[in-house]
Amino acid sequence: MSQYHPIRFVDVRLTGDFWRERLDTVLAHTIPSQHKKLAEYGLLESLKLPQPPPPLRFPRHANGFTVQVFWDSDIGKWIEAASYALSHRRDADIEAKIEAIIDDFEKAQAPDGYLNCWYLGREPEKRWSNLRDNHELYNAGHMLEGAIAYFETTGRRRWLDVMERYVELIRQTFGPGPGQKRGYCGHQEIEIALIKLYHLTGEKKHLDLAAYFINERGAQPPHYYDVERTEREKNGWETQRYPFPNYEYQQSHKPVREQDKVVGHAVRAMYMYSAMADLAVELNDAGLKAACETLWKDVMETKMYVTAGLGPSAQNEGFTWDFDLPNQSAYAETCASVALIFWAQRMLHLDLDGKYADILELALFNGALSGLSRDGEHYFYMNPLESNGMPHRWDWHTCPCCTMNVSRLIASVGGYFLSTAPDGLAVHLYGGISSTVSVKGTDVAVQETSNYPWDGAVRIAIDPATPLAFDLKLRVPGWCHGATAKVNGQAVALKPVNGYATINRTWTRGDVVELDLPMPPVRLFAHPGVIMDAGRVALKRGPLVYCVEEADNPGGRVQRYKLPRTADLTVEHRTDLFKGIGVVTLKASASAIDESDWHTLYRTAPPSEKSATVTALPYYLWANRGQGSMVVWLPEA
Amino acid sequence: MSQYHPIRFVDVRLTGDFWRERLDTVLAHTIPSQHKKLAEYGLLESLKLPQPPPPLRFPRHANGFTVQVFWDSDIGKWIEAASYALSHRRDADIEAKIEAIIDDFEKAQAPDGYLNCWYLGREPEKRWSNLRDNHELYNAGHMLEGAIAYFETTGRRRWLDVMERYVELIRQTFGPGPGQKRGYCGHQEIEIALIKLYHLTGEKKHLDLAAYFINERGAQPPHYYDVERTEREKNGWETQRYPFPNYEYQQSHKPVREQDKVVGHAVRAMYMYSAMADLAVELNDAGLKAACETLWKDVMETKMYVTAGLGPSAQNEGFTWDFDLPNQSAYAETCASVALIFWAQRMLHLDLDGKYADILELALFNGALSGLSRDGEHYFYMNPLESNGMPHRWDWHTCPCCTMNVSRLIASVGGYFLSTAPDGLAVHLYGGISSTVSVKGTDVAVQETSNYPWDGAVRIAIDPATPLAFDLKLRVPGWCHGATAKVNGQAVALKPVNGYATINRTWTRGDVVELDLPMPPVRLFAHPGVIMDAGRVALKRGPLVYCVEEADNPGGRVQRYKLPRTADLTVEHRTDLFKGIGVVTLKASASAIDESDWHTLYRTAPPSEKSATVTALPYYLWANRGQGSMVVWLPEA
Repeated sequence: MSQYHPIRFVDVRLTGDFWRERLDTVLAHTIPSQHKKLAEYGLLESLKLPQPPPPLRFPRHANGFTVQVFWDSDIGKWIEAASYALSHRRDADIEAKIEAIIDDFEKAQAPDGYLNCWYLGREPEKRWSNLRDNHELYNAGHMLEGAIAYFETTGRRRWLDVMERYVELIRQTFGPGPGQKRGYCGHQEIEIALIKLYHLTGEKKHLDLAAYFINERGAQPPHYYDVERTEREKNGWETQRYPFPNYEYQQSHKPVREQDKVVGHAVRAMYMYSAMADLAVELNDAGLKAACETLWKDVMETKMYVTAGLGPSAQNEGFTWDFDLPNQSAYAETCASVALIFWAQRMLHLDLDGKYADILELALFNGALSGLSRDGEHYFYMNPLESNGMPHRWDWHTCPCCTMNVSRLIASVGGYFLSTAPDGLAVHLYGGISSTVSVKGTDVAVQETSNYPWDGAVRIAIDPATPLAFDLKLRVPGWCHGATAKVNGQAVALKPVNGYATINRTWTRGDVVELDLPMPPVRLFAHPGVIMDAGRVALKRGPLVYCVEEADNPGGRVQRYKLPRTADLTVEHRTDLFKGIGVVTLKASASAIDESDWHTLYRTAPPSEKSATVTALPYYLWANRGQGSMVVWLPEA
Repeated sequence: MSQYHPIRFVDVRLTGDFWRERLDTVLAHTIPSQHKKLAEYGLLESLKLPQPPPPLRFPRHANGFTVQVFWDSDIGKWIEAASYALSHRRDADIEAKIEAIIDDFEKAQAPDGYLNCWYLGREPEKRWSNLRDNHELYNAGHMLEGAIAYFETTGRRRWLDVMERYVELIRQTFGPGPGQKRGYCGHQEIEIALIKLYHLTGEKKHLDLAAYFINERGAQPPHYYDVERTEREKNGWETQRYPFPNYEYQQSHKPVREQDKVVGHAVRAMYMYSAMADLAVELNDAGLKAACETLWKDVMETKMYVTAGLGPSAQNEGFTWDFDLPNQSAYAETCASVALIFWAQRMLHLDLDGKYADILELALFNGALSGLSRDGEHYFYMNPLESNGMPHRWDWHTCPCCTMNVSRLIASVGGYFLSTAPDGLAVHLYGGISSTVSVKGTDVAVQETSNYPWDGAVRIAIDPATPLAFDLKLRVPGWCHGATAKVNGQAVALKPVNGYATINRTWTRGDVVELDLPMPPVRLFAHPGVIMDAGRVALKRGPLVYCVEEADNPGGRVQRYKLPRTADLTVEHRTDLFKGIGVVTLKASASAIDESDWHTLYRTAPPSEKSATVTALPYYLWANRGQGSMVVWLPEA
């Protein structure tokens, strides 16, 4: 296991243009507008108990499942996102709104600690009767993460106290002991939250409860979801056929250590793998580590979009089979890429290996970041890699999970840049941060300055309180060839091992490392198993995957372009596209099919082609300038 | 309106190799094995009333909808298919099986004529309570078509009598009169059957009832499906939310004459358009004709696969938006292509225009014929245009509609070859038939001989009982350029008008027309709106669309090939592929990506390519030699 541990989000300031802009947008627009939506769509109303018996706004679904059963989680996640944002700039108005929600939760909490507003308000007799579908423990997890984040930012522990009481009830309710339910949630999440609570409090019982949920998962016979279904049937509470009978959907088809293929609902999977990796670190559990590594290999080699999107299918919001990566119909839920970042970060702390940081970065700059609009108030739930012009960003979702997942990610992104070990400091991401970390008990100020991801020139000032010898481990991205470095102006040899170059020296105030990461644009090709991408090419520069969007290429569908293998890719620094924000586009000579002479659906005459210039834009920026077609994988000429 | 009317299926013999083989297979394998499946899956059992209260084998779906509600239709369709087959070769065993089914239907019929085994056996009180979902009139239509076919083949009218009693009850039940229900079926079909009954009996009341169902459809407010839903809710019979609330799914979102876009469930749509075209012919209804023409244009210009497959989406088994024609996930239900043939045939008799016959032929040889395996006992319900190797033919379907739709089509294919008018004979299809038709009251023997679709050399012997002057109208397919003809060895000028070349002369015994239809292989390109086919090409020869299948191109996924625009397409006549059956394959030089040096999902190194030979097979023949990958639209090199 690695000796490195991440730095808390509250200890890292974002100073670079790229992330400052996103953070400012989240602070000024996303957090306030999300609160408005929580009110408008009835989520805040749902906390006022008793809830009225008819559904608030949404009808019940099949399986006795309702939209509202997971609303507690969305509120918890909004508080979490807001708390991360507040750590950068306090805001009395937002804090008052959070306190009002905590008032409601506090009032709603049952005397025994139970706290789920759907069940308390509507069906108190059905508490814990359907772990498979109804998200009680999932909700508890998100509320707990929110309570922890709010405490870390503000030091206020009222909601944390509420949640600790609830966690105590959960601990008493679930487990292998007599009279306990041997259940676990159909949507993994509480495990991550319990481990965070362990990190915060140091109380091992929280780690143990997380380990119980992970280790019990998939145990059979009997399968817990069969046991509870039988019980529901006895009570007349189960009337519909379940659409995912083998429980692969929620990764409980077999014990987690025996799982070697990534299956089912993508977000559930990623949350579970994150918790497994966390536990592998904390418990030094080689079995869990091995399972994580096997699952990582499976998803990386056969199931991930080039954007780090996960889960091609809308039917199960998840995985299908090897190499099934359709572009236009890609589900690739924003939450899944966010959760991949969680998992990658935890894998990175199992082994400090750049292959994990590379994916963390890829998901961050592409599949996850694409989930939030430039204005911070519109979202993608699905992140297709090709569009005929119909998809557009929504201002809310019936299931709003992704909206707060992307805002909490951006507001806490500082927490992904650095890790420390007893004898070292590792830098995983670049883009402008400052922090003071503790190495060997000495405070070390770190200031990283760069125009990353647009430029690979990175400057890192290392200022220990007193001169101190330690390893500075600098990530050299897997996509980067020919990286060079200087220390105080003197070239040093970079010999990255597993993606990290170590500079060991006695660091003193005023030391400056300059790292140069060349990032020429490159073409990417997909494994022939990805039959959708046969004869196609994608463009990438540094960590950014590019797309061709109609907004930059007016005159019809962008699928008209074919890109010759030999066409130069020209880098252009642009500030005219997004209100002065600097971005890098790529330009190339291409051929373009002329649609004007088409009058039938099929014809024998080849399409007329003319030469054209095609402009590509970072994928995460698409769909911010009206609706239009888009393509990541361009046909080759 | 055209003066031409189709010849009855019983009056045409199939003599050519191509259709004889398919017909023999249907006779010897498909019809008997389908009867076995009807027994094995409980369909025959469901006729024995009263049915046991718990579901026979299949659980209920959401919406109170069950699989079994449409089983009557499948049985009716099997009898229809068997009857067409029996017209070629009587079979006492099959006839006994049909008689046994008729026994059951006769016993099951209620005293007032009602005959739906699901409702009679399970929920008699709910009769006619859910036309939207529960297929009562659809079932009646298929049973009626079966009864008519059985009568036409055997002259036995016991079942026809049963069905005429049922039709009488339906006539009394539905209509604009006092006490009548102003309903119509959620799945169109009875309209076609009623028009067939009108053709058989000459009784105009059947035509009128069909016209009522078509004209009432989509009338609002109130919408009939809302009226009956409200009634069900009062009775506590409607508990679920309906997934297709605007009724586009069943083409009842607005009156049929106002419909100008092809929407919803593809088979429902095609059955409805077929009935509309029928009524336009019979009633000389210009409004219905205009609606049909508008809908035809819409589907042809924006919504049809190159194979004449229809309906890309599994979600609604139907249409989505313009140019949405994904290949791998194509639903393209066999039934929809079969039903397109029905519609095209009726359009052809509205206007004798080759554009309708071209589509009839395209659907017949591609999207429909692909639904039945070589052995006649395996089926495709969905007909994708690309495969990663997972799809394979099934020996039955939970919803077995397609199985009997393809068998009834093949067994009745003779009915699509010829039409007569008061002063002429039109030949729409080629492939070997003989028939004696009546023109101007004179019997004219017609013998068409060819190796079509493999070869375009067609010989037609015209033998009138006495010398007779009339128009012989020969279809010159739209795909054919440079067609030539001789009469009794003398070249005649062919000047096709709307796809038909007219030869007017006094025909006498021994006259022979030789028609030569050149069919070089061609490349097809898709409209740029079909973004899935960007940079891709399809191959076609004569009426046959080709595909590249792994069975002919071993060594991995066939998506490895890229076809240069300039590569020659070589025609090969082969008898080694399918037990001596002659087929034509196409061969071309291509490049092939080497998969052996791939170890990651994405990479910057371009794929290694080597030159290769690619073999293409008619699409309808795919998936008969084990599972393997397949592609219709090949990337171009």
